[in-house]
Amino acid sequence: MNKLSQLRQAVNEAQLDVAYLSDPMTIKYLTGFGSDPIERVLALLVFADHDPFLFAPALEVEAIKDTGWPYDVYGYLDHEQPYAMIAEQIKKRVAAPSRFGIEQGFLTVARLRALQEQFPKASFDYDMTPTIQHMRLIKSPDEIAILEENGKWADFAFKVGFDAVKIGATENQIAAEIHYALQKHGVMHMSFDTLIQAGAHAAEPHGATNDTKIQDNELVLFDLGTNVDGYTSDASRTVAVGTLNDKQKDIYQVCLEAQLAAQEAAKPGMTAAELDKIARDIIDQAGYGEYFIHRLGHGMGMTDHEFPSIMEGNDMLLEPGMCFSIEPGIYIPGFAGVRIEDCIHITKDGNEPFTHTTKELQYVGR
Amino acid sequence: MNKLSQLRQAVNEAQLDVAYLSDPMTIKYLTGFGSDPIERVLALLVFADHDPFLFAPALEVEAIKDTGWPYDVYGYLDHEQPYAMIAEQIKKRVAAPSRFGIEQGFLTVARLRALQEQFPKASFDYDMTPTIQHMRLIKSPDEIAILEENGKWADFAFKVGFDAVKIGATENQIAAEIHYALQKHGVMHMSFDTLIQAGAHAAEPHGATNDTKIQDNELVLFDLGTNVDGYTSDASRTVAVGTLNDKQKDIYQVCLEAQLAAQEAAKPGMTAAELDKIARDIIDQAGYGEYFIHRLGHGMGMTDHEFPSIMEGNDMLLEPGMCFSIEPGIYIPGFAGVRIEDCIHITKDGNEPFTHTTKELQYVGR
Repeated sequence: MNKLSQLRQAVNEAQLDVAYLSDPMTIKYLTGFGSDPIERVLALLVFADHDPFLFAPALEVEAIKDTGWPYDVYGYLDHEQPYAMIAEQIKKRVAAPSRFGIEQGFLTVARLRALQEQFPKASFDYDMTPTIQHMRLIKSPDEIAILEENGKWADFAFKVGFDAVKIGATENQIAAEIHYALQKHGVMHMSFDTLIQAGAHAAEPHGATNDTKIQDNELVLFDLGTNVDGYTSDASRTVAVGTLNDKQKDIYQVCLEAQLAAQEAAKPGMTAAELDKIARDIIDQAGYGEYFIHRLGHGMGMTDHEFPSIMEGNDMLLEPGMCFSIEPGIYIPGFAGVRIEDCIHITKDGNEPFTHTTKELQYVGR
Repeated sequence: MNKLSQLRQAVNEAQLDVAYLSDPMTIKYLTGFGSDPIERVLALLVFADHDPFLFAPALEVEAIKDTGWPYDVYGYLDHEQPYAMIAEQIKKRVAAPSRFGIEQGFLTVARLRALQEQFPKASFDYDMTPTIQHMRLIKSPDEIAILEENGKWADFAFKVGFDAVKIGATENQIAAEIHYALQKHGVMHMSFDTLIQAGAHAAEPHGATNDTKIQDNELVLFDLGTNVDGYTSDASRTVAVGTLNDKQKDIYQVCLEAQLAAQEAAKPGMTAAELDKIARDIIDQAGYGEYFIHRLGHGMGMTDHEFPSIMEGNDMLLEPGMCFSIEPGIYIPGFAGVRIEDCIHITKDGNEPFTHTTKELQYVGR
């Protein structure tokens, strides 16, 4: 069953007259049409007993038709009243709709009020956000294939980045080399700001790439990902410049052991919390527990912040098709930071990573 | 009066107990603290008779203090209940608040409902969005200075881009050169996707930079901008490769005449619609009116989509400190597209542009 049919069934089961979907990510997911209308109105209307329709800025209508969208699409011009036009089309299909589903986690108050003006007697209490999140949780083989392609670009980016490490180069300069190499291949978008942090700077997990210069005898953390065809990659590696002391080596090896153990263990039937604990226990037992200050991982796919969350307290069972990061980290303020991360997808009996850059400690910059 | 005092006065005049501001752009504007909390909660609470406070993810609290924020800031951890904590702090200041201002154009329905649960008897009908938009409309000298810096980077980007034009190069490759040169100087963010469109591709004003190759004897359109220190630049130039025919030259000259006439005319006391008409009349009279399919300009500052909108029907009077684009375009499907754009700020008796790259037709790629 395709995604739109699945959504229609959910609309039917929830006894809704119409679902008003307006998150561009949801619309891309359900229709294949990707666009960010910024302040203009883009919406997908889904009914249990009627075909869906798209409503979009007039300038986008041709692009929607070009994607092969088989149902109706209506455009509006800037001086027209989009919500009145949407209401008119809804009423042609359902004369007096009383129950709407909306994406409460995306729709703004102003836009809900504009819809309510058109349908003052209707209820807008039903939230479609969990339905969409649940659908997006399990990736299809087509989605996995695009994530694998993104993973290859992340591996390519690491190679370029490691080659660009030189004592005295800034983090920003290394990021520039990565972006340039990707863009020369037509990979124009990263999925988040590329993070390159040298030495003690890497102990600030919410810091940003800046003009910090690479120095001898330190660890350098890379966290990066691409956005190709509407899906993402996200991976981290930490590499060595010069000679490391025992403590630098130790935090690297502990973090690596935790990452490998969790990646080895991830499979259907265990909970997200159990997986988090496998990595956390290793870091705890090595005495660095207080320096692992975030969850083990986050779901990813069209974004790098979706479900499942791999953290204490999350009893969600892992299932084939779930995609998430496994990224333990050890951050010792004023000293160094290490993070090692692959994103994986759960398979029938285990998992497969999207990135394959070696995780053994690499010495670069010489 | 500083921005926060101005906002407090607006809260007082609207007889609100508290304004709940949550758009990260608003928070950056009012406090200087810029951060995108994604799914986490970041809010600025403003009262008429009490000092404001910030509420943020715990990880951000130190960064907020580092900006010199002189008032209270409260952090929360992922497992805590942010809205209950915010409510507790509000009640310490106003025991039983009955009137809230919210940003209806930003706040999601889910978050409004979370707030309403804490204050079931309060009204959330007052919209702060127009107040904030109105404040942001007039830029201060400090803001103008940052916009000027961004304009210089846009001029630099044009130079790099024009130098990179070669017959056979793709639009993406030219964009890659621009981004690389900027990033080597630490300018890591563009304000929107750099647009480079060659030949007939430029006649699709909603198209994107792609693998189209530069050919001989055509016009190439550049539209780009940087984002440095939380403010933007945005400018367009169209250049020639090889030899142009009369029609290519004509649409360039008509577009240039329209742009120069509008930029010459923009000053306090005229309306946005009047300014639009000056450029539009020139293009109409030359017979290309049907190919100028968008408004003359848009406001800019922290983003490239704010007020004032320079379009027919907008009777807003131009005032010193307003910043917007002047960007007539002529797009002839299947043939060519031209757009020439500077962003300007209105001064006491005229205007000043942020970008200075020549607008006379330049021949490049040889």
